[in-house]
Amino acid sequence: MINGQFYAPEGKPAPVVEPGEFVFSVIGLDHGHIVGMCNGLTEAGAVLKSVYDPDPAKVDAFCKAYPHVKRAANEEELLSDPETLLIAGAAVTSERCALGLRVMAAGKDYFTDKAPLTTLEQLAAAKEAVKQAGKKYMVYYSERIHAETAVFAGQLIEQGAIGKVIQVLGLGPHRLSAETRPEWFFQKEQYGGILCDIGSHQIEQILFYTGAKDATVTHSQIGNFNHPEFPELDDFGDASLLTDTGAAGYFRVDWFTPDGLQTWGDGRSFILGTEGFIEQRKYMNLGTPGGEGHLFLANGKEETHYNVSGKVGFPFFGQLILDCLNRTENAMTQEHAFKAAELCVKAQLQAEVIAP
Amino acid sequence: MINGQFYAPEGKPAPVVEPGEFVFSVIGLDHGHIVGMCNGLTEAGAVLKSVYDPDPAKVDAFCKAYPHVKRAANEEELLSDPETLLIAGAAVTSERCALGLRVMAAGKDYFTDKAPLTTLEQLAAAKEAVKQAGKKYMVYYSERIHAETAVFAGQLIEQGAIGKVIQVLGLGPHRLSAETRPEWFFQKEQYGGILCDIGSHQIEQILFYTGAKDATVTHSQIGNFNHPEFPELDDFGDASLLTDTGAAGYFRVDWFTPDGLQTWGDGRSFILGTEGFIEQRKYMNLGTPGGEGHLFLANGKEETHYNVSGKVGFPFFGQLILDCLNRTENAMTQEHAFKAAELCVKAQLQAEVIAP
Repeated sequence: MINGQFYAPEGKPAPVVEPGEFVFSVIGLDHGHIVGMCNGLTEAGAVLKSVYDPDPAKVDAFCKAYPHVKRAANEEELLSDPETLLIAGAAVTSERCALGLRVMAAGKDYFTDKAPLTTLEQLAAAKEAVKQAGKKYMVYYSERIHAETAVFAGQLIEQGAIGKVIQVLGLGPHRLSAETRPEWFFQKEQYGGILCDIGSHQIEQILFYTGAKDATVTHSQIGNFNHPEFPELDDFGDASLLTDTGAAGYFRVDWFTPDGLQTWGDGRSFILGTEGFIEQRKYMNLGTPGGEGHLFLANGKEETHYNVSGKVGFPFFGQLILDCLNRTENAMTQEHAFKAAELCVKAQLQAEVIAP
Repeated sequence: MINGQFYAPEGKPAPVVEPGEFVFSVIGLDHGHIVGMCNGLTEAGAVLKSVYDPDPAKVDAFCKAYPHVKRAANEEELLSDPETLLIAGAAVTSERCALGLRVMAAGKDYFTDKAPLTTLEQLAAAKEAVKQAGKKYMVYYSERIHAETAVFAGQLIEQGAIGKVIQVLGLGPHRLSAETRPEWFFQKEQYGGILCDIGSHQIEQILFYTGAKDATVTHSQIGNFNHPEFPELDDFGDASLLTDTGAAGYFRVDWFTPDGLQTWGDGRSFILGTEGFIEQRKYMNLGTPGGEGHLFLANGKEETHYNVSGKVGFPFFGQLILDCLNRTENAMTQEHAFKAAELCVKAQLQAEVIAP
């Protein structure tokens, strides 16, 4: 049974640098997203040098996927490696910030799985460290940067295909597969709550597609509707946002993907504009075989089903590499990465508990 | 260009009474929904006898659709007709209650287009009149009762196909076609605001699919994002509800269906349950020809695309006829019809204005 923790998109190699020009290493293998992060970077020309995690079993599994990677004896070996320019990590969510602080203090850029942090105190520390070190704390908001429909949607909006964006509405259902999840996944202090965890993808998309720099969480709620055996698991959450562009945002996230579904989640994104709308069916086209990458565009001229699988690619990773080398912000601004993090923590903090 | 005001589903004749056993007449032709209402009733065996509207042009158009209908000289002629058991009407929204009060005072049941009323004062008067007269004030919530996917979804939920309902999420986009709309359509006092008007369909569905008797509107907002020429038009609205079953509800309604779309609106309904989910694509399957009636079911056993067009029918109308004859409440309870009306007025009243 496919579940999202092992979903790691692969794209076509599109190197932006020569071999050896951009070397990164990995610390923290607590979430399977690290594979997608490494795929994205290596396809863009980065060289994966070394890996460290305190759990040798996790390192074993990782080294199977990346046979040429070097096993480091400890974290310090990587942090002090002059060749390594960036550390990618998928630690336990609540420990991602602390790792980032160590990485940046060692003079390296940091690329973490989402959510990048779980508290506003961590956010303040991360912001301060970025300022002090002049380094990057970038985030793998995979449901936008590692989904081709999501990239294409951004291009269409930029081209004016749907006019001005009025609302972004996201559905982020996920398969639980509880038996495959580590203990920390069910501890709220560690995973951060559903709106912080898988909600972070959604909030990042609301900011991105509306072109907003800020937003207010106008309503949010969480619940545990059907998993009394995991009392700290939010199995449902939703939230409404109002962005500083005047556009609205709404999203629902949940852990109720049923076993009959062809993949781990029927992730959708509906973007309503003044001149048309876009629907993304990111990972599957419900009720239809044919894989991922379905985008639908309707506007004054057309109603079109695009299958963009393998056609759009994932420009984020090459841009990130060049951003690190050139100290630019083309992949994602630091402000945007932190704003999404802030809003998902706030959405979680102010959420009303509606179940049980 | 198709727009929803002229959308009038036709089903297979499925009479529940002998010819002449149930006679109804029509007062109020301000909205094209009256055609769908009459189709539903006549297909179920009702006989349409007479029609009255102060505007002879509207009566002309109606008589083209129903050549055997008799033109009444005035409303009183219909209200005093002993043969007419029910009056169907699609008056200006703000006048629907007043018409209903006259109809029930004349000892007849009333079947009005949605929204059935626009203020809480009207609701109180309608409730009192129902109690006094012992008559029905039924409502044409067409996006559930006159959409085969919506009927089928209810049957699937009743059969337990998705377990207990956690959330109902509806998208109700509509094509504006401003040039075809009457003046009252743009006057808020008359159409009631978007959450009251097309939002009423959505709130009725949230109550119905969750099996709720009551709900709280926890958040609602409206806006006019792109129609400054109609300052009282809400072209966007959304709302969150929490029902007394513990389930959540969210809906978005808007007037932004673009001209390239194959029909007047890509109406959707996503119903999330503990054991699976349902998606309705009621009027079209985006990006695909093939008409209306698409329902998708995913649960522990299956992921299935059902095309139910012409297969499920519209049992509401036959049930309503029998309810009127037998004084039962199988089509819809009076309490349910009024509760949906109450909540859509409340959603509108408490809505924050987010644009312009």
